[in-house]
Amino acid sequence: MPNTKTQCRTSSGTQLKHARLGEITPEMEVVAEQERLEPELIRDEVARGRLIIPANLHHSALVPTGIGTAVTCKINANIGNSSVTSCLDGELEKLRLSIELGADTVMDLSTGAHIDSIREEMLRRASVPLGTVPIYQVIQEVASAPEMTPQMLLENIEHQARQGVDYITVHCGLLRSHLPLAARRLTGIVSRGGSLLAEWMMAHGQENPLYTHFDEMLEICREHDVTLSLGDGLRPGCLADASDEAQFAELTVLGELTRRAWARDVQVMIEGPGHIPMHEVEMNVRRQQEECDSAPFYVLGPIVTDIAPGYDHITSAIGAAMAAQAGAALLCYVTPKEHLGLPTLEDVRQGIIAYKIAAHAADVARGRPGARERDDELSRARYAFDWDKQFELSLDPERARSMHDETLPHEYFKSAEFCSMCGPPFCSMRVSQSIEGLADPDAAERFLNGNGVAPPSE
Amino acid sequence: MPNTKTQCRTSSGTQLKHARLGEITPEMEVVAEQERLEPELIRDEVARGRLIIPANLHHSALVPTGIGTAVTCKINANIGNSSVTSCLDGELEKLRLSIELGADTVMDLSTGAHIDSIREEMLRRASVPLGTVPIYQVIQEVASAPEMTPQMLLENIEHQARQGVDYITVHCGLLRSHLPLAARRLTGIVSRGGSLLAEWMMAHGQENPLYTHFDEMLEICREHDVTLSLGDGLRPGCLADASDEAQFAELTVLGELTRRAWARDVQVMIEGPGHIPMHEVEMNVRRQQEECDSAPFYVLGPIVTDIAPGYDHITSAIGAAMAAQAGAALLCYVTPKEHLGLPTLEDVRQGIIAYKIAAHAADVARGRPGARERDDELSRARYAFDWDKQFELSLDPERARSMHDETLPHEYFKSAEFCSMCGPPFCSMRVSQSIEGLADPDAAERFLNGNGVAPPSE
Repeated sequence: MPNTKTQCRTSSGTQLKHARLGEITPEMEVVAEQERLEPELIRDEVARGRLIIPANLHHSALVPTGIGTAVTCKINANIGNSSVTSCLDGELEKLRLSIELGADTVMDLSTGAHIDSIREEMLRRASVPLGTVPIYQVIQEVASAPEMTPQMLLENIEHQARQGVDYITVHCGLLRSHLPLAARRLTGIVSRGGSLLAEWMMAHGQENPLYTHFDEMLEICREHDVTLSLGDGLRPGCLADASDEAQFAELTVLGELTRRAWARDVQVMIEGPGHIPMHEVEMNVRRQQEECDSAPFYVLGPIVTDIAPGYDHITSAIGAAMAAQAGAALLCYVTPKEHLGLPTLEDVRQGIIAYKIAAHAADVARGRPGARERDDELSRARYAFDWDKQFELSLDPERARSMHDETLPHEYFKSAEFCSMCGPPFCSMRVSQSIEGLADPDAAERFLNGNGVAPPSE
Repeated sequence: MPNTKTQCRTSSGTQLKHARLGEITPEMEVVAEQERLEPELIRDEVARGRLIIPANLHHSALVPTGIGTAVTCKINANIGNSSVTSCLDGELEKLRLSIELGADTVMDLSTGAHIDSIREEMLRRASVPLGTVPIYQVIQEVASAPEMTPQMLLENIEHQARQGVDYITVHCGLLRSHLPLAARRLTGIVSRGGSLLAEWMMAHGQENPLYTHFDEMLEICREHDVTLSLGDGLRPGCLADASDEAQFAELTVLGELTRRAWARDVQVMIEGPGHIPMHEVEMNVRRQQEECDSAPFYVLGPIVTDIAPGYDHITSAIGAAMAAQAGAALLCYVTPKEHLGLPTLEDVRQGIIAYKIAAHAADVARGRPGARERDDELSRARYAFDWDKQFELSLDPERARSMHDETLPHEYFKSAEFCSMCGPPFCSMRVSQSIEGLADPDAAERFLNGNGVAPPSE
C-alpha cells in the first residue's frame, strides 16, 4: 500500500536506536497506520526487539513494513535465478507479481549469472523490504567454498548494505561443534548457506567466520540499518531430523547473537524450520521465543509431511498457519516446485496465495483487530450473489473469476443466483433466503407455535 | 488395495451387529490387515460405535475400509454432475482418478440428469465405499421441495440401499425449532439437503420428515447395512456463523439420533463443519465427540478463512489437518472450484492430494503406527539423489516427475546430484554429504580438538 508518508524516511541510525531513544520515526508512523495501531505501541515494540522494520537507509523505493507478533502476520516470497535457469526479465516479473499478490517482503536468492545487476534492478522496483543471502554472491567469486575468506564475506555484506538491501540471511549460529550432530542426521544440512559454511569449517578446522566476525558485521548493519535475519543453517530437512539436538544447539547460539546485536542497536529476526510434524510446531515457536527473547520468528513453512513433492506449498501452508497462530511473525513461502526445481511464475502465484491464506487464517485465529472483516464482507457478497464483489474481495480475484467463468462465462451469470457447482434448483443460499423472515422473533414464535406455515420472506 | 479376502463378504446383518455378538467379519479382517492392527481391536471398536466399516451387503465391488480414531485418517472425494454441467464419462473418469490417487471413500453428489444410472455405474466400479445424498434424487421427481413426501424419501433410501450404496447423508437433525436460529445468520443454511428440508418445513409448518420417520429409515439401513452419515444441515457457511447456537443445537440432536441408531445396530458417522476459524477447530471436534459418544466425525474441511475462492482446497486442508489431529476420522475434500463451480478432473486431483496431505500429516502427528515410514523413506531417497524413487514414493508421482522434468527432462538428471532449484554448486545435500564422516565419534573428537581438518568422507 503506497503511502505519501514514505517520501519522508529516516536518514541515519537504526529503527531500534531511534525507538530506544523514544523517537517515533516516519517508518514507525507508516507501520502504525497500516496496522491500525498507535505509533507509540509500534515504537515500544521496536525498542523491545519484538518488532522489526527492515528499512535500509538507502532503499528509497521502500514502503516500510512491520514484522512482529504485535502486528499482522507477514509473508515472504523467495525469487531469484539459479545457474541452471536464469532470466533477468523473468525474475523481475516474479517480483512484480509477488508484490501485486501481496507478498510483504521478497528475498532475491539468485545464485546464477548477473547476481549484482539483478539485485540492483530489484531494489529499484521493490516497494517491499528486500532480503538476500550474501554468501550466495561470495561463493561465485571463488572456485570452492574453502577459498572464501572472512574479509570477502564482510566486504560483500558491506557492498549489499550500500546497495540498499533491507535484511540479510547470515548463518552465524552454525558452529564447528554442531557438525558432528548434523552428521548423524537422515538428510544432514539442507540450508545452502549453512552447508557452504560447514564445508569451509571442515576444510579449515576453524570456527564459522560469520560467528568469529560477528561484531564487524554488526558495525556494517548498524551504519546502514540492515536487519539481521539469523539463518538456521541446521534447520531439519525432513521430519526425521526435526527438533533434534543440532537444530536446538544452533538456536541457543542465535539467542546469544540476538542479544549481542541488540546491544549494538541492530535489528534482528530469527529464521526457523523447515520440516516439522504438526504436533511439534507450537513447541518450536515457544522455544524460539524463549531462547531469543521474543525476537520475531521467520519460519520456512514448516512442511508437515515429506511425501508430497509437487504440493509443498500445501504441506507447508498447514505448518505455517499453525506456526503463525503460535506466534511466528513472518512466513517464508514454499512453492509447489520446492525440492524439484526453480519456481515458475505460476508456482510463485500458488506459493504466495497459500501463504496469504496461512497468515490471514492465523490473524483471524489470534483475533488481530479487523482481521475478520474481509471474510465477513466476502461472505456477505457471496450470500447476496454479488459475484463481482466476491471476486474483488478474493486473495486472487483473477483466478477466482476465471474459475467461475470456466463453466458460466456470460455476464448474465455475474448476478445469477447459482453457480455450476449446484445449479439453480440446488443453490442452498437461494433456498435459505426463504427463511430470513424467521429472524423476526414474533414471526419465529408464530411459526414454532404451529400456526400454519411460515411468513413469506420479503 | 485389492485383497483376495474381499471375495468373502458378510451376507446378512450389520457390521455393528456382528461386532456386538463378538463375531469378527471378513470385512473386519481386511481392515485389521490394512491398518496393521489386531482383528479383535477392530471388532471391539466397531462394537463401541467408534469405528465404522461402511459396507452395503449388495456392493460386491467393495474393498472394505475402516473409519474411526483407532485407524488411519481417511479422505472422501465428492464427485457427480449438476444440472448445469453433466457428463457420465467425465464423472466416471473422476471416480477412477479419485481411487487411483487414494480417495478412501467417494460420494456421488449428482443432482443432474441420469442420476440413477450414474450411481449404478459408479457402484459397479467403486472398490471404495460409495455414499450419496438421497434427497438429491427425490427432489428431481417433484416440482418443488414442499411436494416431497416422507414416503418418497423412504422409498428412495430403500431403492439406493438395494442398489448397494454404502452410506447415505441424511439431514435428520435439522429441526423446525432450529430455523429461527439459522435465520439470524450471515449466510443462513448452506447445506443443500438442509436447505431443501428447511423449505419443506417452512411450507408445511411440520417437523423434518427425516426426523419423524427416523425409525423407519433405521429399518432399511439395518437390513442392507447402510451406514448413516448424519448430515449437518446447519453447518456454518462462513466464519461469522461458526460454532453458533444453530450449529450446536443440531449437533445435540445428532447425538440423540446416534444412540437411537446404535440401539438398532445401525452404523453411524457424524458430519461436521464447514467454515471454522483455526482457534475453534479442536473445540469443535471435542464437542462432537462428547455429544455423539465418539461416533466417527466426518468433517468438510473446515475452511479457515473465507477470502480465498479458487484456493479452498488449501484453506480447508489447513482446517482438515487440524481437525484430524484432534480426532476427526474422515475428511471430506474441498476442491479449488468450491464456491465457484463444478470441479474438473484437475480440481479433483488438487483436492484429493491436499487431503491426502492433511490426513497423513495428522497420522504422523498422532503417532499412528508406521505413519512416518514413508516420509523417512522418501527423505532417504531425496538425500541419495534417487529421483525416480522419490517420485515413486510421492503422493502424486506423475506430477512430481513432470515438475522436475520441466527444467531437467533428460534421463541423465534422474541421478544428478542437484535440481534446477539450486543447481550443482549450491546443492546443500551434495555438500552436506561431506560431513558424514563426523558421525563417527572418534573422527568427531579429533575434528573438534582442532587436530587439523576433518577426515574425508568415504
